Amino acid sequence: MRYDFGSDNTAGMAPAALQAVVDANDGYARAYGADDVTARAADQIRRRLDADAEIRFVFSGTAANAIALSMLAQPHEAVLAHHAAHVCTDETGAPGFFGHGLGLIGLPGFSGKIEPTALHAALDEPVVGHRQPAAALSLTQATEYGSIYSEDELRHLIEPAKLRGHGVHMDGARLANAAAAGFEVKAIAGLGVDILVVGGTKAGMPPTEAVVICDRTLARRFDSRLKQAGQLPSKGRFLAAPFVGMLEDGDLVRHAAHANAMARRLAGLSPFRITHPVEANGVFVEMDDERLAALQAAGWFVYRFLDGSVRFMCSWATTAETVDEFGEALRRVA
Amino acid sequence: MRYDFGSDNTAGMAPAALQAVVDANDGYARAYGADDVTARAADQIRRRLDADAEIRFVFSGTAANAIALSMLAQPHEAVLAHHAAHVCTDETGAPGFFGHGLGLIGLPGFSGKIEPTALHAALDEPVVGHRQPAAALSLTQATEYGSIYSEDELRHLIEPAKLRGHGVHMDGARLANAAAAGFEVKAIAGLGVDILVVGGTKAGMPPTEAVVICDRTLARRFDSRLKQAGQLPSKGRFLAAPFVGMLEDGDLVRHAAHANAMARRLAGLSPFRITHPVEANGVFVEMDDERLAALQAAGWFVYRFLDGSVRFMCSWATTAETVDEFGEALRRVA
Amino acid sequence: MRYDFGSDNTAGMAPAALQAVVDANDGYARAYGADDVTARAADQIRRRLDADAEIRFVFSGTAANAIALSMLAQPHEAVLAHHAAHVCTDETGAPGFFGHGLGLIGLPGFSGKIEPTALHAALDEPVVGHRQPAAALSLTQATEYGSIYSEDELRHLIEPAKLRGHGVHMDGARLANAAAAGFEVKAIAGLGVDILVVGGTKAGMPPTEAVVICDRTLARRFDSRLKQAGQLPSKGRFLAAPFVGMLEDGDLVRHAAHANAMARRLAGLSPFRITHPVEANGVFVEMDDERLAALQAAGWFVYRFLDGSVRFMCSWATTAETVDEFGEALRRVA
Amino acid sequence: MRYDFGSDNTAGMAPAALQAVVDANDGYARAYGADDVTARAADQIRRRLDADAEIRFVFSGTAANAIALSMLAQPHEAVLAHHAAHVCTDETGAPGFFGHGLGLIGLPGFSGKIEPTALHAALDEPVVGHRQPAAALSLTQATEYGSIYSEDELRHLIEPAKLRGHGVHMDGARLANAAAAGFEVKAIAGLGVDILVVGGTKAGMPPTEAVVICDRTLARRFDSRLKQAGQLPSKGRFLAAPFVGMLEDGDLVRHAAHANAMARRLAGLSPFRITHPVEANGVFVEMDDERLAALQAAGWFVYRFLDGSVRFMCSWATTAETVDEFGEALRRVA
Repeated sequence: MRYDFGSDNTAGMAPAALQAVVDANDGYARAYGADDVTARAADQIRRRLDADAEIRFVFSGTAANAIALSMLAQPHEAVLAHHAAHVCTDETGAPGFFGHGLGLIGLPGFSGKIEPTALHAALDEPVVGHRQPAAALSLTQATEYGSIYSEDELRHLIEPAKLRGHGVHMDGARLANAAAAGFEVKAIAGLGVDILVVGGTKAGMPPTEAVVICDRTLARRFDSRLKQAGQLPSKGRFLAAPFVGMLEDGDLVRHAAHANAMARRLAGLSPFRITHPVEANGVFVEMDDERLAALQAAGWFVYRFLDGSVRFMCSWATTAETVDEFGEALRRVA
Repeated sequence: MRYDFGSDNTAGMAPAALQAVVDANDGYARAYGADDVTARAADQIRRRLDADAEIRFVFSGTAANAIALSMLAQPHEAVLAHHAAHVCTDETGAPGFFGHGLGLIGLPGFSGKIEPTALHAALDEPVVGHRQPAAALSLTQATEYGSIYSEDELRHLIEPAKLRGHGVHMDGARLANAAAAGFEVKAIAGLGVDILVVGGTKAGMPPTEAVVICDRTLARRFDSRLKQAGQLPSKGRFLAAPFVGMLEDGDLVRHAAHANAMARRLAGLSPFRITHPVEANGVFVEMDDERLAALQAAGWFVYRFLDGSVRFMCSWATTAETVDEFGEALRRVA
Repeated sequence: MRYDFGSDNTAGMAPAALQAVVDANDGYARAYGADDVTARAADQIRRRLDADAEIRFVFSGTAANAIALSMLAQPHEAVLAHHAAHVCTDETGAPGFFGHGLGLIGLPGFSGKIEPTALHAALDEPVVGHRQPAAALSLTQATEYGSIYSEDELRHLIEPAKLRGHGVHMDGARLANAAAAGFEVKAIAGLGVDILVVGGTKAGMPPTEAVVICDRTLARRFDSRLKQAGQLPSKGRFLAAPFVGMLEDGDLVRHAAHANAMARRLAGLSPFRITHPVEANGVFVEMDDERLAALQAAGWFVYRFLDGSVRFMCSWATTAETVDEFGEALRRVA
Repeated sequence: MRYDFGSDNTAGMAPAALQAVVDANDGYARAYGADDVTARAADQIRRRLDADAEIRFVFSGTAANAIALSMLAQPHEAVLAHHAAHVCTDETGAPGFFGHGLGLIGLPGFSGKIEPTALHAALDEPVVGHRQPAAALSLTQATEYGSIYSEDELRHLIEPAKLRGHGVHMDGARLANAAAAGFEVKAIAGLGVDILVVGGTKAGMPPTEAVVICDRTLARRFDSRLKQAGQLPSKGRFLAAPFVGMLEDGDLVRHAAHANAMARRLAGLSPFRITHPVEANGVFVEMDDERLAALQAAGWFVYRFLDGSVRFMCSWATTAETVDEFGEALRRVA
């Protein structure tokens, strides 16, 4: 079975990430993130985001998102998110586990983007004792369906939430893909995002994610919080190094741009109807069970997503040749 | 500042671990531990332990231990452990976090080993509604103080606990050091350990720990449990590969034996009184504040441990030359 | 504002409940449920249910349900329930709080009853790491919409759940109303319900609910569990006494039968379309905002329920005169 | 077996409490604490405490304390408390359950009072990632050993804690006894207590405790918090009424003064050495196992406390005759 298009986490490490890990292996280093590599990586990210943020590197995007939400909402409160957001559908209830029962309120919207009127309606819900009232907003950039919020779209979602005192979280598991598509990441902090998770894994790194705390008042005793949650690496340099390696020469965005381009190329070859805008590195198509089975029988592991589309993901490692080969396979089963 | 003896997590990856990570980077792999490297690593560990166990690779020893305890005791119950065990003192309350309020009952005993009479007394405590009754026993091998339980010592602790229906957890963050010192790891499952955590990080790997579920009835839906807890790596191959690399040619135990030997060499050079048996890779000495400050001023980062001793840890990376240099430094401040 | 039909928890204590509280106040009693009144109440309930169950009296139905669910499903698992069940909609996420992130999977079905085909589909869902798999089924009798499951209907829901090893919880906040309508409560344990919560509050008692553990293997250390969860009353006699008072002379079912009869009477007077079968003590009608506002302006506190119906609840305290008066008010605004 | 001196929760309701419950039973009332009785009780308490506080009535002191602590410290933080405080020893780990792993740091001090130097040392502990740093201070008034803090003693504990930004909780399960002994409860809010729990149960009420939130910024969405935690009574009037009944004519303090006087009388009759100052309603004596067994064999249920003393508790219901009878029993076994 071939996993090329199954997900963007089936590829390995990009060369610069791997090289940085090898380089970071030299000698002794202070534990728990007090090392030089971690400091360098954090500086790089602050510079790229133009944000004076507190930054930590953790193992897991699931944990990073869940911890962030638990910092923005109490157990008796809830977080507003797109109903197809990763935190709602693919993290096995991690927000409730790390947030001690914290609730999620799923909002509708096309192609993974929250519909502003739905958000306003949710924000206007009266607080009643027997429901978990909203206390935070979670946004995903790029979305689960490969669409990308414009700066204005984000502003129109964030502003009304902030007006009610809600915190804002951004799941940036594929932020590099959004950046490569033209989204200006330097705007994030200014838009009012309190905690941002910048994905490393799907961008071509080994397991590592950067938690970026834009609102530093939230960061108090953050190392204790991460340690308790099993997310404070003793050998922190190995989680920071891939960011150093992929940021210093711009490989992070370059690879993401390549993944996006591969998705567009694949979309162009698809004989199946495309169901969502191809703005990042994913392609979603309408395909019946018989054709999906035929595609899998031909050796390609891909699967049906939440909305019924079949999803193809591209990554830094996807080659044009493989896309063409896969396009051919699609045509054969169409 | 030099971190050579500050901890066994200040060293990098051993060559075989790094090489295995590099080798594992080839091509695409199925996500979430369904890849071939993970299967190979699990097989290796099962063979070394002679145990038909369910095995997963997770990021963090803190999380691995806490999750294991949460599988053996309910929130209204408690776990018996040495009062200086890592779960009691160095994990920021992770057992209570992952275990939703689960309690810890600290037991006394010399050099990190639980005193059997104290265990018996604790097991004989009547169950009353207003206390958290014991439901599990946690053992650490090698202990936090560098001592090693014999098979018989473990049997005399485990048997009475099992007789009361209690589960048994073993924190094997330094199991390789115990193995290198002659402890037979093939005995662990037979002794009645239900869940074992085999440390990778302190043994010379990047962050990775193996959770070994000897009692497979506990493993039901374990992937969901790990995913929710932020400990199911999507790119699982990079957590399994170091075990493959260090187990296939015996490097794991060979390096641990080296670390143990370096500790003995250092103990032999120490002008300070040794406070615990040097059976694994740690040396604990009696040292006053003035001398500790002088040692640190000389550039060596080491610190005072829970019992007031100053701790020196050796690792796979410690060289005889550095030990001798450090011994010289000790003599200068003595 | 009049609260007569706002809920069945706006009425006070029925005479027999109050008298039993007064009687129980005599002298000293052993604390934490070890008193004679508690023993008598538990015996009464066991007899009425024909079940050799472990029984405790707790303060809150919300807590009783949530604790029960936490005993049947782990945090990384989920409970199947009707999407309009109290545990899903009206308990502020208590199952997730007491269950440490435990998930709820809402199932459809008319008038609060789970549709069997929906249950089967949910039971057949494959277990995948990134979702919370079902581990238990929660049923409500009578339902939130005033309908009542027949014994056969329950059997057809419980059997397939038990076949997969799932636990079964029954929320019996209005079990007395179901019993009064002819449902045989002696069948509950035999049907496979593992934990039943028998409501006292809505049946005319002060705050008290009976937790009935039919599967006694679940009851181990249950007092510790309740104490930790803030649900082990020191003066337990005052939670048990109302059950003694209302069970010994059959007042519990007699009052519930009265409440049911009042609901039928009210349904007969309603000029608004009835939206759910009137089998227990609630009446649901179709009413637009203008008429609802007029009814409230006339001094009657009632409100719109989840499905858009307006709900009227009767209780032990509802009189025929008040029903007629309210019927008149309905006609005036119609 | 006689339970007269076993605890102050073995007595029933005082007459005024019972009468108020009976009186409150009239007619319909709005649910979830929005009723008139609740408003009156809250007003009464605000007046007695001279504090513009947010007030709720909950079922359980254990839950009230645990919820309060969870509002003052995060899961990765800890609460400083006397090592013999009820939250540390008698609540089955409820703070960790409601606080999601929140830690407790036990401090020493004679007769249940925290020793100021120990508090200062704890406050001066450096924050390190692998420990749960203190974020709050919990005080008990009267203490578990029947001693009473003076206003000055409290000030010297609270001030340094507040200086570090820590929250302050007071467990007032026996606050009435402290008030009866001369402690000025009007000083509490001014001293800097953020959340106070005023005990009803041990003071002669049915199960009910008042949560007094002096720092109203903590009270946001408090009803949702209580509902989720199973501590928002639907028939709230029955938890508020006893406070109305016992506060309006001063019965609360009058009964507590009686209990205190009975303790002093008993202390005067005791042939056993008194181990703690008899300032509230408890008497602690030194007694060997043989004599304790003889006392129990004579039909008096009393038990050994944490420090090895045997404890005798008096309540509103204790009569001088019974004290004398018990004094006689003590002399017989002495």
